Amino acid sequence: MEINAMSLSDHHTDRPQCRQQRPSSANLAFKGKLFEVWQWNQTLFDGSTARFETLRRPDTVLVIPILSNGDIIFAEEKQAGMSPLLHAVGGRIEPGESPEEAARRELLEESGYVAEEWSIWDAWQPVMKIDWAVYLFVARQLSVASAQHLDSGEKIRLRFISARQLLDRESDLELDDYELLYKLYQARSSDSERQRVAKLFGI
Amino acid sequence: MEINAMSLSDHHTDRPQCRQQRPSSANLAFKGKLFEVWQWNQTLFDGSTARFETLRRPDTVLVIPILSNGDIIFAEEKQAGMSPLLHAVGGRIEPGESPEEAARRELLEESGYVAEEWSIWDAWQPVMKIDWAVYLFVARQLSVASAQHLDSGEKIRLRFISARQLLDRESDLELDDYELLYKLYQARSSDSERQRVAKLFGI
Repeated sequence: MEINAMSLSDHHTDRPQCRQQRPSSANLAFKGKLFEVWQWNQTLFDGSTARFETLRRPDTVLVIPILSNGDIIFAEEKQAGMSPLLHAVGGRIEPGESPEEAARRELLEESGYVAEEWSIWDAWQPVMKIDWAVYLFVARQLSVASAQHLDSGEKIRLRFISARQLLDRESDLELDDYELLYKLYQARSSDSERQRVAKLFGI
Repeated sequence: MEINAMSLSDHHTDRPQCRQQRPSSANLAFKGKLFEVWQWNQTLFDGSTARFETLRRPDTVLVIPILSNGDIIFAEEKQAGMSPLLHAVGGRIEPGESPEEAARRELLEESGYVAEEWSIWDAWQPVMKIDWAVYLFVARQLSVASAQHLDSGEKIRLRFISARQLLDRESDLELDDYELLYKLYQARSSDSERQRVAKLFGI
């Protein structure tokens, strides 16, 4: 898979760092299904000591797949114990996978599509106290490769929203995807950023 | 303290709910300094069972204190083990406190100011898998009441940024405060939302 270099200026493509770094003395206080809790003793400015705590969770990918008619594929997901959520295609990066491999796998599993053209919109860490990177990809030149391959806990219906509407400053955004909403508001918040993202979208 | 009712339409003032609800059968798997890890067995659509996990952390307040000249007070914080961060005044809601009480306390502790006019800009849950509400307040009619009262781990220098610049679509935002950036991008992303927030700011 080739990553489109045009889009990379001024935006992260390497893994962004957590703003609150764990020192090497930090110890793993708890390892859950998804989250790890790390703690260490930190000397404060007045010489006293406090126990500090941060989390780790697996990095995730989000994919914006754009069809040739300008529609973007979203996933409306029903999960046990939750009301339906409308979010970007994506999920966890598995051990040993690169972000690009995870993006390609999640696109195929959740939508049945493959894409020939990949760009990265941005990569960032959304929460100060959690070591967790999110990679946001744009996928173009799509074609259907198979049916969806869903996990036993997933029910996903594909939904389509036009790329123009997502970038239109006066259109409502009904998405339940906080990380994507952040980047969409950011794209709508200045003319230069909106132009950059429109170019990524190919519109 | 009176909360300005003008600003409340269409935005949360009560505590927003976590989108992934913990069932009553959930058990506390780990209690850290800041985070709690909750787990439960969830029956999936195919009848199989999986272990689900979410977190809790204390709710937080953010305060936008606006001086009569239109400048907003921010906190440039040095914390042991981190590079300096420029963020909104605010912090954790302590047990037994209301969000408004926490906002008033944090404003006084971090800046030495008190405010007569309080409005709520929004209250929301920023991360799907963490039960964590953020309340964003605007404080006006400020006066100096005391010196800062900082915790032993805190070094805070006050910084001033004009409210107009924060809402100007072409001004850079050099803040390290992801939750506030989200709301500022949202405010810049449509004319109606920008007008609503400018009115809250009194500009």
